[in-house]
Amino acid sequence: MTAFEPLFVPESLLDAVSDRAWLEAMLEVESALAQAEAAAGVVPPEAAAAIAEHCRAELHDFGTLLEQGRTVGNPAEPLVRALRMAVDRDAAGYVHLGATSQDVMDTAAMLVARRALDLVLAELDRVAAGLAGLAEKHRSTPMVARTLLQQAVPTTFGCKAAGWLVAVLEAQRRLEEVQTERLAAQLGGAAGTLAPLGQSGTEVLRLFADEVELAEPVLPWHTNRTRVADLGGALDLTAGALAKIGLDLVLLAQTEVAEIREGQAGGSSTLPHKRNPVRSTLARACARLASGHTAMLSSALVHEHERAAGAWHAEWVALSGALAYTGGAAAAIGDAVETLEIDVERMRRNLELTDGLILAERIAIMLGGVDAHEIVREAAIDAESSGRTFEEVLRADERVELSDEVLADALDPTTYLGSAEAFVDRALAQYRGSRPEGS
Amino acid sequence: MTAFEPLFVPESLLDAVSDRAWLEAMLEVESALAQAEAAAGVVPPEAAAAIAEHCRAELHDFGTLLEQGRTVGNPAEPLVRALRMAVDRDAAGYVHLGATSQDVMDTAAMLVARRALDLVLAELDRVAAGLAGLAEKHRSTPMVARTLLQQAVPTTFGCKAAGWLVAVLEAQRRLEEVQTERLAAQLGGAAGTLAPLGQSGTEVLRLFADEVELAEPVLPWHTNRTRVADLGGALDLTAGALAKIGLDLVLLAQTEVAEIREGQAGGSSTLPHKRNPVRSTLARACARLASGHTAMLSSALVHEHERAAGAWHAEWVALSGALAYTGGAAAAIGDAVETLEIDVERMRRNLELTDGLILAERIAIMLGGVDAHEIVREAAIDAESSGRTFEEVLRADERVELSDEVLADALDPTTYLGSAEAFVDRALAQYRGSRPEGS
Amino acid sequence: MTAFEPLFVPESLLDAVSDRAWLEAMLEVESALAQAEAAAGVVPPEAAAAIAEHCRAELHDFGTLLEQGRTVGNPAEPLVRALRMAVDRDAAGYVHLGATSQDVMDTAAMLVARRALDLVLAELDRVAAGLAGLAEKHRSTPMVARTLLQQAVPTTFGCKAAGWLVAVLEAQRRLEEVQTERLAAQLGGAAGTLAPLGQSGTEVLRLFADEVELAEPVLPWHTNRTRVADLGGALDLTAGALAKIGLDLVLLAQTEVAEIREGQAGGSSTLPHKRNPVRSTLARACARLASGHTAMLSSALVHEHERAAGAWHAEWVALSGALAYTGGAAAAIGDAVETLEIDVERMRRNLELTDGLILAERIAIMLGGVDAHEIVREAAIDAESSGRTFEEVLRADERVELSDEVLADALDPTTYLGSAEAFVDRALAQYRGSRPEGS
Amino acid sequence: MTAFEPLFVPESLLDAVSDRAWLEAMLEVESALAQAEAAAGVVPPEAAAAIAEHCRAELHDFGTLLEQGRTVGNPAEPLVRALRMAVDRDAAGYVHLGATSQDVMDTAAMLVARRALDLVLAELDRVAAGLAGLAEKHRSTPMVARTLLQQAVPTTFGCKAAGWLVAVLEAQRRLEEVQTERLAAQLGGAAGTLAPLGQSGTEVLRLFADEVELAEPVLPWHTNRTRVADLGGALDLTAGALAKIGLDLVLLAQTEVAEIREGQAGGSSTLPHKRNPVRSTLARACARLASGHTAMLSSALVHEHERAAGAWHAEWVALSGALAYTGGAAAAIGDAVETLEIDVERMRRNLELTDGLILAERIAIMLGGVDAHEIVREAAIDAESSGRTFEEVLRADERVELSDEVLADALDPTTYLGSAEAFVDRALAQYRGSRPEGS
Repeated sequence: MTAFEPLFVPESLLDAVSDRAWLEAMLEVESALAQAEAAAGVVPPEAAAAIAEHCRAELHDFGTLLEQGRTVGNPAEPLVRALRMAVDRDAAGYVHLGATSQDVMDTAAMLVARRALDLVLAELDRVAAGLAGLAEKHRSTPMVARTLLQQAVPTTFGCKAAGWLVAVLEAQRRLEEVQTERLAAQLGGAAGTLAPLGQSGTEVLRLFADEVELAEPVLPWHTNRTRVADLGGALDLTAGALAKIGLDLVLLAQTEVAEIREGQAGGSSTLPHKRNPVRSTLARACARLASGHTAMLSSALVHEHERAAGAWHAEWVALSGALAYTGGAAAAIGDAVETLEIDVERMRRNLELTDGLILAERIAIMLGGVDAHEIVREAAIDAESSGRTFEEVLRADERVELSDEVLADALDPTTYLGSAEAFVDRALAQYRGSRPEGS
Repeated sequence: MTAFEPLFVPESLLDAVSDRAWLEAMLEVESALAQAEAAAGVVPPEAAAAIAEHCRAELHDFGTLLEQGRTVGNPAEPLVRALRMAVDRDAAGYVHLGATSQDVMDTAAMLVARRALDLVLAELDRVAAGLAGLAEKHRSTPMVARTLLQQAVPTTFGCKAAGWLVAVLEAQRRLEEVQTERLAAQLGGAAGTLAPLGQSGTEVLRLFADEVELAEPVLPWHTNRTRVADLGGALDLTAGALAKIGLDLVLLAQTEVAEIREGQAGGSSTLPHKRNPVRSTLARACARLASGHTAMLSSALVHEHERAAGAWHAEWVALSGALAYTGGAAAAIGDAVETLEIDVERMRRNLELTDGLILAERIAIMLGGVDAHEIVREAAIDAESSGRTFEEVLRADERVELSDEVLADALDPTTYLGSAEAFVDRALAQYRGSRPEGS
Repeated sequence: MTAFEPLFVPESLLDAVSDRAWLEAMLEVESALAQAEAAAGVVPPEAAAAIAEHCRAELHDFGTLLEQGRTVGNPAEPLVRALRMAVDRDAAGYVHLGATSQDVMDTAAMLVARRALDLVLAELDRVAAGLAGLAEKHRSTPMVARTLLQQAVPTTFGCKAAGWLVAVLEAQRRLEEVQTERLAAQLGGAAGTLAPLGQSGTEVLRLFADEVELAEPVLPWHTNRTRVADLGGALDLTAGALAKIGLDLVLLAQTEVAEIREGQAGGSSTLPHKRNPVRSTLARACARLASGHTAMLSSALVHEHERAAGAWHAEWVALSGALAYTGGAAAAIGDAVETLEIDVERMRRNLELTDGLILAERIAIMLGGVDAHEIVREAAIDAESSGRTFEEVLRADERVELSDEVLADALDPTTYLGSAEAFVDRALAQYRGSRPEGS
Repeated sequence: MTAFEPLFVPESLLDAVSDRAWLEAMLEVESALAQAEAAAGVVPPEAAAAIAEHCRAELHDFGTLLEQGRTVGNPAEPLVRALRMAVDRDAAGYVHLGATSQDVMDTAAMLVARRALDLVLAELDRVAAGLAGLAEKHRSTPMVARTLLQQAVPTTFGCKAAGWLVAVLEAQRRLEEVQTERLAAQLGGAAGTLAPLGQSGTEVLRLFADEVELAEPVLPWHTNRTRVADLGGALDLTAGALAKIGLDLVLLAQTEVAEIREGQAGGSSTLPHKRNPVRSTLARACARLASGHTAMLSSALVHEHERAAGAWHAEWVALSGALAYTGGAAAAIGDAVETLEIDVERMRRNLELTDGLILAERIAIMLGGVDAHEIVREAAIDAESSGRTFEEVLRADERVELSDEVLADALDPTTYLGSAEAFVDRALAQYRGSRPEGS
């Protein structure tokens, strides 16, 4: 099945959720299990060593395991059989000891997730660095803020970038929390009691978690999928934060707005003049796909008894896709942000488009009193219909007791920025605080 | 990225939504366009022939097109460039004439969908045939019906199978309607006006639709995605109908119920005695994945202006997945149904589990009157707590004016089947009516 | 719980899915059942008449039924008890004869849906009439088409409105199909066999369906929810088609684009000058809410055995919300379209914004040959960077062998409309064909 | 519109998300804003006092605000107008100073959420306490564990309850984190710059957050919806954890399994003998509705520029529903757990259903060696087909070198519990650790 992958997702991230990556993770689980059991004295060290030797990806083929897995419903069972056949008779009985297929798949999923998250987080670092740069450079670059897509009041482009940045930092922090605290080893045996390990069950669990460098869970979580859902939720959040940036970029790049342009803007098969915001577009597509996949994780939260008949199996595809497409969105936004062309002059011209109307709030506040809002509203309508400027109409209104000079100053958008720059500083402080020292 | 495909989806269906299938469909579009334009006199026949000659899949590589497509956001633009380079100078200007990338991608998507639907429908035929066979064979096989998973009243296994069958037939009919009426050619040019074709636009559209054997739309549908959503809706419906069967099978196969068993029941990596309902399990997983993908299609319904910046691009992955996983669910249920082992004896024993309580409704109706429900409810509770049988309690209750013989007959579950068999006949009539004659 | 209803949904539609509407529908079901059973000779006519007399909404309270329903999981059971208490002893035994709570709830849901759909369809009529009017009036009004939110090529506003219209007509047709063919009576008794009705089951089913004027199903559909999902799918489609219009309107109303304005544009609590596209905004919010509710219907497709333990119960809220919010979206778009202010002059000015670049495709086609696309692309870039007009650059390029006059004509956007007007005519023909004659 | 609320959601929770609750929260915001601005010296204290006096819910009507809000798209603007009319002229200009409608709605939403979360968390406390009690009491009560709904190996009911408990504790912890860290005041003015407050913007923001006792955000979050999505994610997680319990309870309550029964099991309108698991059923329905509403929050993550045209407006309904239905699910599970009847004897009998096959894993491990799995699998099949017991078959197999006594002991399910009890202890320790001391 085609997933149009190279169009959407960086190669390194595709690798991290590939057949090969899953196979390697599954093999790492089997090997780590044997090591942990050797350390616990449940398995002879030689058997553990023999098992580890056969846990190399080049000795197995994931496609074949999937084919064979059709009869049992997962690729772990054929892998276990293959390992048992491969090692010598003495070690065979120690392969996968006390574990079940789900232990292998779940722990492997966490290993795949941990590594893919490293790549996603690295892309987000790139996004955050780019946005922090924009916020700093354009801390005081005036532009218009838009609400319900109507020009509202002045702001700065730095403040806008700071808003994007804070969302990305929040998403990143959540991803890091999940990566550190919620990715856990799974080891419960056939149904969560680790019965074959007798009294050593919890010790092996601890050693196993150490071995794969994942958190040790209080209980096996074979049908408590809150960990998987937490991961899905964090990815969904991230995809949303990135999609918001993509949407704003697409809107700012509109021909009629033209305040930004993607440095790698794309051509068209038909229209020679087009410079399309392709990175933002692909980021938005990726974010949709990511959210679609995290929704599958969420809807698979409810597992039956000690192993789900279907909800579990659907997680693997959903998890791979959620990781890859979130990373794809981050990479595309990273590209867009790093090469973004800002048209400061156009931002200034757009601020003047309404001929002062975007300062209407300021005038109303200066007038004060209960009628101020209405006086200004009438002036705005008058200006629109009469052809006179907003300034002229205000001057002519005797209720407006402001000198011409005061009025002219008040209609300068670049002096009505409020806390925009202070907010940029706060966002940058948060950004710097989130970096390890010296980085 | 791994999608665990061989585990879930039959190879033929994977092929139908593969890189190759998409590439072939895109090439068919370019070729058909040139033919249609030749027929309309817009393109010289020789140019059309030259173009067709280069529209062979072995001359192109989809992966490369996707890589190249990253800069423009789709693989159609690089394909067009490649074709223009490949044909001689005279024909080059006629490649993709008047069309845009979206025309290629959308029409190709419809072609991919049409072919994949053939395979999905064939799998559903197999499911329907299997269910019709079960309904017919077990028309009068008594079993218990369960509501809120509690034993309720008797029914027949044929009636249960008939219920599954009718849902499948309804889903199939909807898929066929969509395949016939809603899969349409897309040709609008850069933004839906077909301007480069001058006065020939609508004629070329008609000829092009004929050439690709898809419906001719009233208008180009580049940003009217109701066709895609209709397809998604029909697939979602189908996945749901199949998941319901899978769920019922899993429930019936429970150790404690044991009324059915999958003929190809699967083993376990750990538990030597297990015979897992793997086909139903995989069907349920596939149905979840299918619904997840159709949800992405639905959420991408809302496109901006004359081409969406992201919503469109997300459709390709979603469509491929929706088709493949729906087919995977159908195939798995088909396997399960064809090899299903029915334990008629166990169904009979389960009918007796409550010692007559599942006939409580019948007794209440026979008693009649406003207190009947309450009399029977008390007897049911009494029977449960006292250790006496329901029959004994009823006999001892002087308000129950039924002779012992009448009561005994009334407590025979096999004579309280109502219209179960009539419903089987109605479902089978619908099934037969849905087949082409002679099939 | 607040649902902010008066903000989003017209009162008539809120009424159609209100407590009262559900109660009336449930009572209609009980009454119709008694009538049907009287007609089939299963119930004495006097009992049926007595039952009907108590099936009046003013005699019951839905809130109370819901409170009482907490112990059984639905409000139908307490209603049945209330009816049995209310009628005299002779009739009591005939209340709800052979039926189960789900029969009442499912058939009532269909009745509620049928009536609410009438209102939704009426709102869509208003939308379609408005759009048809716009398409006709602005059949030849030139405006720019935008792809990926970049100016692409000329089109007409009529053609854009025609695109919206066709999507609405398709959604409307699908809703009508569902309303006519898929809304069906549900009557199966405790578990779908109608056992209490003995041999009269299917006859009563037929008479009951006639009585409530809903389709007669082949089988009871208590756990075959394809009908409900079909309804959900059609509503989702409709919401999507409306949201697309809302999105385009919001984009066209942007300060920098300003091609349309809502006639009832809204003010702001803060900004005296704002004229917000409030109807489009609320339509988009409603469409989101509608899709959210239809997704709940879709995800509840999979029911266990003969009655679901939860999936069924979730449908009632989801159905009411899906109907109401879809109608809310239609009403808001209807308002927006009916009062839409079109700024034809601004459309014209926006066409000139790129100084001819949106005719680049046309020039390339006129040049012909394999280099044409590249020649024009270079000229477009040159024009952008040099400050010269696109026309000047083209004139200066010796590869462009077009006379000044021909070039000037070619750069007139109003003469490059292709089939835009023909498509308007096709859409209007479809619109007129979809109306009953004489309307 | 009916939402069947009394059926699903406790009254206190309905109150917490009612019209009244939203109105009170909005008024609290206006009052707190005036207080904060008075503290910052921006508003005269008398004006702030006058404003506070009119911020009482009994002076306003939410329904009316919603009606009036149709023209502007939200109920905050009419409320501001009403307040300005109500206070005297001197104070009027200070009402809502520097704020925008979204500040009011967003902060009110957080206040509503905080209070509703208190109720949800209290219900979860009840659930957790009940589960901890079950885990402790049944720490060593043997029952069978089921994978893919097939009997697998022995476990204890306490271990099963511990698994439910840990999921609930994890959900609860996440909700608490969100409640503490992520619910934040929103104050940005028209577009996030707080321009009307001049240099006092950030100070007022700090004082305002203190006043409403919500976190102070780094930046206004008007279009950074990660906070809302985090809340949605935590509720979705919670709903999932509860739905899993509901599902397991429904499965355990099946007539054929009968290991548990709801103490408040419900009757049927038709079947006098039924004791339906109504609380679990309603919990599952609520969880579906909750997830449906959180999905709407997630899909509304992507806001345009400085205020979204629709995505924002859809949040209010979605948030209310997500809170209410999650609480409804918690309440229903709380009821179910608190009154749960455990049939220890039936659990024991079900353990014996397979006649020792669920100890197959143990035998295989005792045999050891590479053939053990196969020897035991053959014996299991033999036992099933021959009518002999598993024990008899094993005894007769000369490859099984176990004495009769050892074999008999090995086939005792109550001695193959592995770490089940240890896991119960770990879960209880986590539970106790999560309680404030002395509670």
